Amino acid sequence: MVQIGDVGERQLIEGFKSFLRPEGRVGPGDDAAVIGKDIVVTTDIVTFDRHFPAGMSYEQFGWYAAAVNFSDLAAMGARPIGFTAALALPQTLDIQAAYDIMSGIDQCAEFCGTGVVGGDTKPGPGVVAGTAIGSMDGRAPLLRTGAKPGDVVAVTGPLGGPAAGFVALDKGIDCQDAKDALYMPIPRVAEGVQLSESGIVSSCMDLSDGLATALKTICSASNVGIDVEFDFLPRETYVDDIAEESGESIEKLLLGWGGEYELMFTADPDRLRKLYDMELEFSIIGMVNDSGHPELVRDGKRSVIDYGKY
Amino acid sequence: MVQIGDVGERQLIEGFKSFLRPEGRVGPGDDAAVIGKDIVVTTDIVTFDRHFPAGMSYEQFGWYAAAVNFSDLAAMGARPIGFTAALALPQTLDIQAAYDIMSGIDQCAEFCGTGVVGGDTKPGPGVVAGTAIGSMDGRAPLLRTGAKPGDVVAVTGPLGGPAAGFVALDKGIDCQDAKDALYMPIPRVAEGVQLSESGIVSSCMDLSDGLATALKTICSASNVGIDVEFDFLPRETYVDDIAEESGESIEKLLLGWGGEYELMFTADPDRLRKLYDMELEFSIIGMVNDSGHPELVRDGKRSVIDYGKY
Repeated sequence: MVQIGDVGERQLIEGFKSFLRPEGRVGPGDDAAVIGKDIVVTTDIVTFDRHFPAGMSYEQFGWYAAAVNFSDLAAMGARPIGFTAALALPQTLDIQAAYDIMSGIDQCAEFCGTGVVGGDTKPGPGVVAGTAIGSMDGRAPLLRTGAKPGDVVAVTGPLGGPAAGFVALDKGIDCQDAKDALYMPIPRVAEGVQLSESGIVSSCMDLSDGLATALKTICSASNVGIDVEFDFLPRETYVDDIAEESGESIEKLLLGWGGEYELMFTADPDRLRKLYDMELEFSIIGMVNDSGHPELVRDGKRSVIDYGKY
Repeated sequence: MVQIGDVGERQLIEGFKSFLRPEGRVGPGDDAAVIGKDIVVTTDIVTFDRHFPAGMSYEQFGWYAAAVNFSDLAAMGARPIGFTAALALPQTLDIQAAYDIMSGIDQCAEFCGTGVVGGDTKPGPGVVAGTAIGSMDGRAPLLRTGAKPGDVVAVTGPLGGPAAGFVALDKGIDCQDAKDALYMPIPRVAEGVQLSESGIVSSCMDLSDGLATALKTICSASNVGIDVEFDFLPRETYVDDIAEESGESIEKLLLGWGGEYELMFTADPDRLRKLYDMELEFSIIGMVNDSGHPELVRDGKRSVIDYGKY
């Protein structure tokens, strides 16, 4: 007998994919699925065990449970139209904590322009399974497969905040900004819709598994390479400070951790004005090429990015 | 401090509803929510703890996890367009059991004309949170609020099978048909679409919480009463046999248990031919009136149906 714990989640999901019948226009494998005419759907579980760092409130846990799902819609360029929340909570939990979780979910849904439209509760160990539903409203979904050599690579905001938050917690470093980045990620829903509206974006995904993983995934899905300029990677000052104080590698904080929810996208460099005209905030971090893998260029030296998942 | 276990799921959900912002055309409170132009969505959790009776296979557990969700779509008259499955499974579980669960989900989705479009897995105690997404394709959704005095009340198939299955398991009565009814409920998706297509159905819901609960819910939501003729209630012979052998009340088996997934609907009696022309199978069980509550007529005597939830 092979136990689930022996193989890990990734292999389990690959096993599922080996026998599931294909369904939908964009099936499992992208940030979310595209079904029907232009409906986008995604589901993600968060648990008390794994996703409840010290100092996080129940309200923030609820926000987080919703945010990870809305981020997947954002990566497709979908406009959220509903959220369902299935909760398996300990019977001994204070009912106010349950209300706080649902209120956090509702606040995140409101931030994303929608609301909670359904749910279910059962006794359990502290599991929230959220499902976010969105509409493309006729726009083409942003996939992982369209990056072309010559495209620029960009991200929608600063990197390394949640990673710095983890390290701050772990090492007892006092930095509320870093912890807040960890506790309440901002799903880039409005930015995702703008990116898909622009018509110039060739691929997109969120950074929930970290920048290195996203780079490797886009290179693999689009069959391209990417050069990333280390000095271009945007970050708040506190990320450098925490790297220095903790002795953690700044490169690992910026590329190697997950838990952040900016979007990474590739776009036609000759038409970037469209994005500037939309007043979309983003930072160019590199270029797509045909090398077949991501490389980091730092102080004139280049190294293959060989960490991250996949 | 009030614990969740002190108040029960129903009160917890009422608590959520008291502060959640409304969203969607038909919000929480019907079998499923209607969002966007005509998308229907519903989510339900099943757990190893609560929904895994003796003798059920992992494949059947997966089927069941999907069926309870598709049944909610059926009750709205929606055509399924996708299913997502979020699994929290014990790390010690045989990986083949996980594949069997997902295969059961896939088979039920195939029966309902769709497939698995997304999912997530995390370590957990054995929780499957399914979400079914459907489209009304321009039809009006079937709600709980439209029953009118003079309408007929009908169900799409025989009642009491899963209840008889529970009793058979509990009392050691040998009846595979009853157990199968419990293990693999058939979501009435095709029937739900036909009912909404017909244009003559004034209200509908599924019987997942039992017939008595459905009757009370429709009476309350539509502000009507319903008379049910006991002798009209359709059932397989084994349900009577198991009632007799076990000493359980046949009335309770037919009305008082949940876990069955036929649809109950009300319809205009003057236009029933539309349903016959569609070759939809159904049994008329009673009539809508203005008494304000459901009553059972048995052997010429009438009694208020005061059991069931809500």
